[in-house]
Amino acid sequence: MLPTTDNSMERTEIKIGGFGGQGVILSGYILGRAASIYDEKYATMIQAFGPEARGSACSAQVIVSHKQITYPYITQPTLMVVMSQEAYTKFVPELAPGGLLITEEELVVPHNLRKDVRHYSIPATRFAEELGKKLVVNIVMMGFLTAVTGLVHVEAMRKAVAISVPKGTEELNLKAFEKGYEYGLSVGKKTNESVSMNV
Amino acid sequence: MLPTTDNSMERTEIKIGGFGGQGVILSGYILGRAASIYDEKYATMIQAFGPEARGSACSAQVIVSHKQITYPYITQPTLMVVMSQEAYTKFVPELAPGGLLITEEELVVPHNLRKDVRHYSIPATRFAEELGKKLVVNIVMMGFLTAVTGLVHVEAMRKAVAISVPKGTEELNLKAFEKGYEYGLSVGKKTNESVSMNV
Repeated sequence: MLPTTDNSMERTEIKIGGFGGQGVILSGYILGRAASIYDEKYATMIQAFGPEARGSACSAQVIVSHKQITYPYITQPTLMVVMSQEAYTKFVPELAPGGLLITEEELVVPHNLRKDVRHYSIPATRFAEELGKKLVVNIVMMGFLTAVTGLVHVEAMRKAVAISVPKGTEELNLKAFEKGYEYGLSVGKKTNESVSMNV
Repeated sequence: MLPTTDNSMERTEIKIGGFGGQGVILSGYILGRAASIYDEKYATMIQAFGPEARGSACSAQVIVSHKQITYPYITQPTLMVVMSQEAYTKFVPELAPGGLLITEEELVVPHNLRKDVRHYSIPATRFAEELGKKLVVNIVMMGFLTAVTGLVHVEAMRKAVAISVPKGTEELNLKAFEKGYEYGLSVGKKTNESVSMNV
């Protein structure tokens, strides 16, 4: 089980980081929408523009909770998705002890990773290219996250993907999602580890 | 001058609405980034997933302020950008008295618009199509907003557009921004009205 940010274990703080144009914000939007509209949870996504927004690093902060969220700022994420080296360097130090980190295999080299962090990497760019469109890399990542965390029901995520992507690209994005999801399931089996979020 | 949400006239609440895939969230992100990173203001963007997120309407809530923002939720927007009829119907009732509404000319028919609302429409879809890429309609809208509100410096917006859009599309998006900006300036001259935001 992953640690959650408060002791009631009902709130999961997620940070998604990458560079502009990778669909970081859309990923957070899909996750929040899946949790709150198609699953039975509450969610917020916030973009607080601080010094970290200088440069090309880009991040979305998502909170998924069983209760209504009164404080939408992230204090210490327990789950992080990282799609660029700059985002890795900037954001990973914030990850909670024992937190779960998901990185894109080609884009991020996990230098000096803390021992307490549980880490998965996925060749999402390669999968996206195999599907003919590199742009869907973020959706592959979301499929993977769904499989390895169980944070939001897979069917809720599928619905949120379908309704949130540009019209005409639904099928491609759903394929990208499935690719990441299946890879996540296979990795979960290999490691024989039950990774679940407390929401 | 536009009314602002609190009496100190230092906080402007903005809501951007449309349907999924139109770049609503990216627009909010660019506006917030321009204000806080390239201008000397504070900004937050929040996506609170409530009942309004059901269906295909999509919105971003942005706050731009001279002070640090402790409460990131919008209570009553004074500026609204609307790119779909569904978003018009859902969101415009929330607009503050005397607020400013910017709509996309082909996509929104402003039924029963309150008399106190100041309204501009722009053929952003047509401009985007003339540039060869309908997808940049949201950036045309941002250019227009910049010209008619003065909320954020134009140079700050240009920088935020360039760094926030997918790599390889910077030039196209900057052209889209200029198109909307120039149209906004010409409309401003025609109406001989000084519209400025109090930030």
